[in-house]
Amino acid sequence: MSLTNLDLVNESDGFPYYQVDPDLYLASISTYYELRVSGYNYGLGYMLPSVAEVFRGVPNWELDDDERTLTLTEGTDAASRSAAIEKTLLAVRATGHFKVLDKWRNELFPVYGRGKELLFNVERSASPLFGVVTYGVHLTAYVKKDGEMKIWVPRRARTKQTYGGMLDNTVAGGMATGEPAFETMVRECGEEASLPDDLVRKTVKPAGCITYFAIRGEKAGGETGLLQPECEYIYDLELPEDVVPKPSDDEVEEFYLWSIEEVKAAMAKGEFKPNCALVMLDFFIRHGFLTAENERDFIEIVARLHRKFEFPTL
Amino acid sequence: MSLTNLDLVNESDGFPYYQVDPDLYLASISTYYELRVSGYNYGLGYMLPSVAEVFRGVPNWELDDDERTLTLTEGTDAASRSAAIEKTLLAVRATGHFKVLDKWRNELFPVYGRGKELLFNVERSASPLFGVVTYGVHLTAYVKKDGEMKIWVPRRARTKQTYGGMLDNTVAGGMATGEPAFETMVRECGEEASLPDDLVRKTVKPAGCITYFAIRGEKAGGETGLLQPECEYIYDLELPEDVVPKPSDDEVEEFYLWSIEEVKAAMAKGEFKPNCALVMLDFFIRHGFLTAENERDFIEIVARLHRKFEFPTL
Repeated sequence: MSLTNLDLVNESDGFPYYQVDPDLYLASISTYYELRVSGYNYGLGYMLPSVAEVFRGVPNWELDDDERTLTLTEGTDAASRSAAIEKTLLAVRATGHFKVLDKWRNELFPVYGRGKELLFNVERSASPLFGVVTYGVHLTAYVKKDGEMKIWVPRRARTKQTYGGMLDNTVAGGMATGEPAFETMVRECGEEASLPDDLVRKTVKPAGCITYFAIRGEKAGGETGLLQPECEYIYDLELPEDVVPKPSDDEVEEFYLWSIEEVKAAMAKGEFKPNCALVMLDFFIRHGFLTAENERDFIEIVARLHRKFEFPTL
Repeated sequence: MSLTNLDLVNESDGFPYYQVDPDLYLASISTYYELRVSGYNYGLGYMLPSVAEVFRGVPNWELDDDERTLTLTEGTDAASRSAAIEKTLLAVRATGHFKVLDKWRNELFPVYGRGKELLFNVERSASPLFGVVTYGVHLTAYVKKDGEMKIWVPRRARTKQTYGGMLDNTVAGGMATGEPAFETMVRECGEEASLPDDLVRKTVKPAGCITYFAIRGEKAGGETGLLQPECEYIYDLELPEDVVPKPSDDEVEEFYLWSIEEVKAAMAKGEFKPNCALVMLDFFIRHGFLTAENERDFIEIVARLHRKFEFPTL
C-alpha cells in the first residue's frame, strides 16, 4: 500500500463538496438531519438519521422529518441548553444506544453561533453524534541538525482506545470549553511531551489552522458514518538539539526523531493517525518541502486542508 | 476608513459560497454562462451574460440559453482550441467590445481540464472575460533586524494601468503558459526587484498557495463584475540586511522597509492592491503575527484564503 498525499486528504476530508459534485452533495445532505437550537434558524451540525431517530419524542427535543431538523427546544442561554443536552445524553448513555458514549470523557466541547457566541457545551464523546465543529491544537516540534530538519514523531500507546499504535503529531489535544488555543497547547506540551512551559512559550510559533470535514470510519471507534468537521490550530516549535520530548502520561509510547523522508514514507504507508497526516502535509507545504513542482495535487491539497464549513465556527 | 482583515478578504473573495448561503449562491450562478470546450461536460469559468452575448452566432462558438453555457466547438487539442479562441478575440478586440482587451498583453495564460491536461491558452487580458482560473507567483521578502522582522513593500508606479500607486508584494507576477511557478518567481525577482538569481534560488522558501474568487471592481480596470478565480503560489525570502531590492523596470516606484505594524496599518487603510493584502494576511498567519487570540475572524480568514474552486486547476 502506498498512499498519495491526496489519498491522505480524502481520508480526513471525505464529506462531499457542492462545487465539485452538486448532485452527490445534495443527495448526501438530504439523508442527514440538521442540528439546531431553538431561536436560531441555521444548522450547527449534520446527524445520521439513525442517531436523530433516538431523539424522537424525547422531552426538550423536536424532530422534524419534513425539514429534516432536530431542534433543542429547551434553554435560552448556553448554561440551560448545555444542561438540557447533558440530561438527555446521560439518559441515552444509560440506555446504551451509542458506542461512542462508552468513551465518556467528562470534558466539554463548545459549540458557537454565527455571532461567535457560545450556544452550548457538549460532552466530548457525544460531539460526533451531533456532527458539530470541534477544535483542537496540533504542534510539530523539530530540530535543525547540520542544516537538515528532523521532526519529533510520537507513537501513540498501543492501549489507546482510538488509533492505538499509530503515529501522531509531536503534541496534540482537544480544546475544551474555556481554554484558549495557546494555553491548551502549552499545557499539552507539558502533559504529552514533558516540554518545559517557559521554553514552549518563548519559542513556539502559531502557524494558522487546518479545517476538514471527516466521515468517521472504523478506526475512529464507535459508530461509523458520523460527521466530524474539525478545526485544528497549528503550532511549530523549533527545539534545541538537547531538548528531547519524553512521554509523561500513558498516551505516548515513544518519540522518534525522523527526517522529512522518513516522515513522508510513514505517511505513505498509512501509519499516521489520519488528521495528523494532514497537519504534516500543512507543515511540509509551509516549510517548502511540498511544492507546486513536486506535488501533482498541490492546489487541491492546500484548499482541502482549509475547508469552509457549512456551520459557524469560533 | 479602517478595514478589518475580513473586509480585505471580502474584497478579493467576493464570490458567494454555497455552504454559507445556498439561495444567494444559486441566484448568482444562474445569472452567469458557463464556459466549456466541446467534448468536456464541465465548466471552466463563469461569464457575464453581457459578455457571453457577444459570442452569439460567432463561428466556432455555441451559446445555449437553456443550459446557460458557451461552448467552444472548434478544436480537438490545446493548439487548435487556442488558435480558434485567439481568432475570435482578435476580431472582438477590433470591434472594441471590451475595455479589458484594450490592455492586450501578448501573454498567454493556460486553462486546464480535470486531468490537469492543458485545454487551451488564452490571452492574459481576456481571461477575466471567460472567468477562468489564472495563476501567479507572489513573494514576500523580509529582513530580521535585532530580532524584529521588517518587510520589503513596493509602491506600484503611479502610471501603472491597474492599481497605480498602490502597495504590492515585494515581487509578483502572472504565470504564463509553459513557465513553472518557481522559474517565474526567480525571473520576476530579477525584473521587479533586481534581486540576484543565485541568492534567490538558494534562499527562497515556497510556502503554499492562496486561492480566492474575485468579482472585479472599478480599480481592476475595464468592465466591472467580471469573475476572476485566482491561484497565487506563495514564496518567502529572508534577505541579508545589505541586500536592498531596487526597481529595475518601470513597474515599481520605490521600496519601503516596514515593520509588521506599519504593514498592518497600510492594509487597514486600503493602501494595498487587494490580492496583495491577502498574501500579507497569509504571511502573517504562517509567521504567527495573526493568531486565534488576536484575530476575531481567524478561522474564516484562513479558510477563505484557500478556496476550493468550481473549476479544475493545475
